[in-house]
Amino acid sequence: MHKGRLEAFSDGVIAIIITIMVLELKIPHTDSLEGLAPLWPVLMSYMLSFAYVGIYWNNHHHMLHVVEKINGSVLWANLHFLFWLSLIPFTTAWMGENHFTKWPVALYGVVLIMSAVAYIILATILIKREGKDSKLSRAVGNDRKGKVSVVMYFAAIGMAFVSTAVSLLLYLSVAIIWFIPDRRIEKALTSHEK
Amino acid sequence: MHKGRLEAFSDGVIAIIITIMVLELKIPHTDSLEGLAPLWPVLMSYMLSFAYVGIYWNNHHHMLHVVEKINGSVLWANLHFLFWLSLIPFTTAWMGENHFTKWPVALYGVVLIMSAVAYIILATILIKREGKDSKLSRAVGNDRKGKVSVVMYFAAIGMAFVSTAVSLLLYLSVAIIWFIPDRRIEKALTSHEK
Amino acid sequence: MHKGRLEAFSDGVIAIIITIMVLELKIPHTDSLEGLAPLWPVLMSYMLSFAYVGIYWNNHHHMLHVVEKINGSVLWANLHFLFWLSLIPFTTAWMGENHFTKWPVALYGVVLIMSAVAYIILATILIKREGKDSKLSRAVGNDRKGKVSVVMYFAAIGMAFVSTAVSLLLYLSVAIIWFIPDRRIEKALTSHEK
Amino acid sequence: MHKGRLEAFSDGVIAIIITIMVLELKIPHTDSLEGLAPLWPVLMSYMLSFAYVGIYWNNHHHMLHVVEKINGSVLWANLHFLFWLSLIPFTTAWMGENHFTKWPVALYGVVLIMSAVAYIILATILIKREGKDSKLSRAVGNDRKGKVSVVMYFAAIGMAFVSTAVSLLLYLSVAIIWFIPDRRIEKALTSHEK
Repeated sequence: MHKGRLEAFSDGVIAIIITIMVLELKIPHTDSLEGLAPLWPVLMSYMLSFAYVGIYWNNHHHMLHVVEKINGSVLWANLHFLFWLSLIPFTTAWMGENHFTKWPVALYGVVLIMSAVAYIILATILIKREGKDSKLSRAVGNDRKGKVSVVMYFAAIGMAFVSTAVSLLLYLSVAIIWFIPDRRIEKALTSHEK
Repeated sequence: MHKGRLEAFSDGVIAIIITIMVLELKIPHTDSLEGLAPLWPVLMSYMLSFAYVGIYWNNHHHMLHVVEKINGSVLWANLHFLFWLSLIPFTTAWMGENHFTKWPVALYGVVLIMSAVAYIILATILIKREGKDSKLSRAVGNDRKGKVSVVMYFAAIGMAFVSTAVSLLLYLSVAIIWFIPDRRIEKALTSHEK
Repeated sequence: MHKGRLEAFSDGVIAIIITIMVLELKIPHTDSLEGLAPLWPVLMSYMLSFAYVGIYWNNHHHMLHVVEKINGSVLWANLHFLFWLSLIPFTTAWMGENHFTKWPVALYGVVLIMSAVAYIILATILIKREGKDSKLSRAVGNDRKGKVSVVMYFAAIGMAFVSTAVSLLLYLSVAIIWFIPDRRIEKALTSHEK
Repeated sequence: MHKGRLEAFSDGVIAIIITIMVLELKIPHTDSLEGLAPLWPVLMSYMLSFAYVGIYWNNHHHMLHVVEKINGSVLWANLHFLFWLSLIPFTTAWMGENHFTKWPVALYGVVLIMSAVAYIILATILIKREGKDSKLSRAVGNDRKGKVSVVMYFAAIGMAFVSTAVSLLLYLSVAIIWFIPDRRIEKALTSHEK
């Protein structure tokens, strides 16, 4: 089974998720500069989520690039991952509209954890299929980044009830960790191209 | 006529259908946990429909993978199938917002039946073109699953006026039946790859 | 310049146009069967437009399939065509919500004319590039269907101020004319495949 | 790393951006011709932005066509570019709904500048990777058009507080400058095909 359509479908869904979030930037009812002020938290949470969804697309792209064969389980694991990702626009909007209060900030983390777990499940199924000695297995390794992220999400959810600023700082930190491209996969890819 | 663009267009439409459903998860007007409570039925019906549309994408993917040639009739049968699928976000939202009362639950089943029938028409046209001895024909066979699904949808619609819980259980059962990947096509595919 | 991305982008835009129209099917505020009644005209106009956009996708698919080379002018003519097509969801919704009164029915025809003209411009540019003896030129020929459609749209717009039922019948007739696949292109394609 | 999925994802996001703008054309509450009148500024700003996003897609298409290899930095620069592009529907709607008053017209320019800068960053990273003697480098050259555009956007933002008509004329002029396809890239492409 070719992976082409799986990639195309995932690209489509992720492209829609990343773009519909902008629909939450509701047009202010006034044409003054002051009218834009209440939009700041919404824009901030949009930027954070844009970065997150972009990171996931990026990693998904990298991971599937080294995969050679897929099967039914991969299709389902991928759909499961897309399901959690599709809830990000909702949690993003709720967090933005409520100016980062505790419950929205905590729920935002819950959906991030579920997305991360779904991604780890997808990666595990792919690695199992490709084999321990595959390029993918060597590239992803023990996936320290993924595990650290989940721990940081848990910490952020807990901190939401103490200080949401700390939670947001933690979410931002995870995004920055991932911004640094996964050298291991890129390295494996480079040697793969040769 | 190559099937590539048909697949790309279908992927696009199905990706949009599956994603716009999440727009029905309207942001609560409060930032408290209680504000999320009324969203449960909406989320439940979203999950059910996400699974259904995912299943259809999956099967569509499998079916077109073994197809070699398409023509005008296939394009129309495919559009007809996408039309019914495109009504799922509407019935999903109506069912979720009304907490699974009888008419919305029944209408949900009607659109599922029409989608299933449209899918069967598409499969029939494809099999007719590919021939009785084609991989597709052997893979789909007499399509027992498809027929059982339609019977279960009819039962669910009838039960909606007695107990919507039974209807939902039936919808869920059909989804689970399909979750188990179509071994026959996958088997045919595997031998096809060799 | 390869036509692949032009096709992919057009597929994306057309897939979104055809799918966002369903967002106009607003969920009724009641869960009774009667609540669905006012949706009939909206559903009817959705079905008509779904058929139209589907026809355009179909013809666009056929036309670009026989094209071998594209250039900047083709990209612009294609964008111009997509622009008019993108207004169809608006005219569809206005027509449906107002139960097919004269101005909405007339405006619906205006956008159809502009889409048809934009499509003819695109075809003309493509044929000019491909040459008089190209497969495309022989396939499209003098494009009688396209010209007849424009005449019928004009008639429908005029009739909107006398009887909108006649206008709708004319719109439906054009859709049916196009439903019959373009045998000439399909024939040319078949010989092309050999 | 293949550029195929980057192109597909960008096509998806740009296709959604260009199409969701039409959702701002809200259906009038009356079925009379007069009901359409207040929509003129919204339609005008939609047309302007449709042209802009179309131009960006066009240039993005041209630029990536001559690129041979991409890496992590290109993925991020591309996402950054898509982020600013995704804000165009918001500024377009704000400008249209307020009939081109000063602040919305100025903000429209700010997002155009940021998009242009993001595009220049993407181009710079690509040229750096491809090398000074690459087709891309020779094609883009010193990118006079890009620089002139940014200057004109700045002028338009300043003029917004004097005369928004002049600002709009400047925005329109930039669009027209870009409408003329980039002969240099097209020339480079033609020689590239040989």
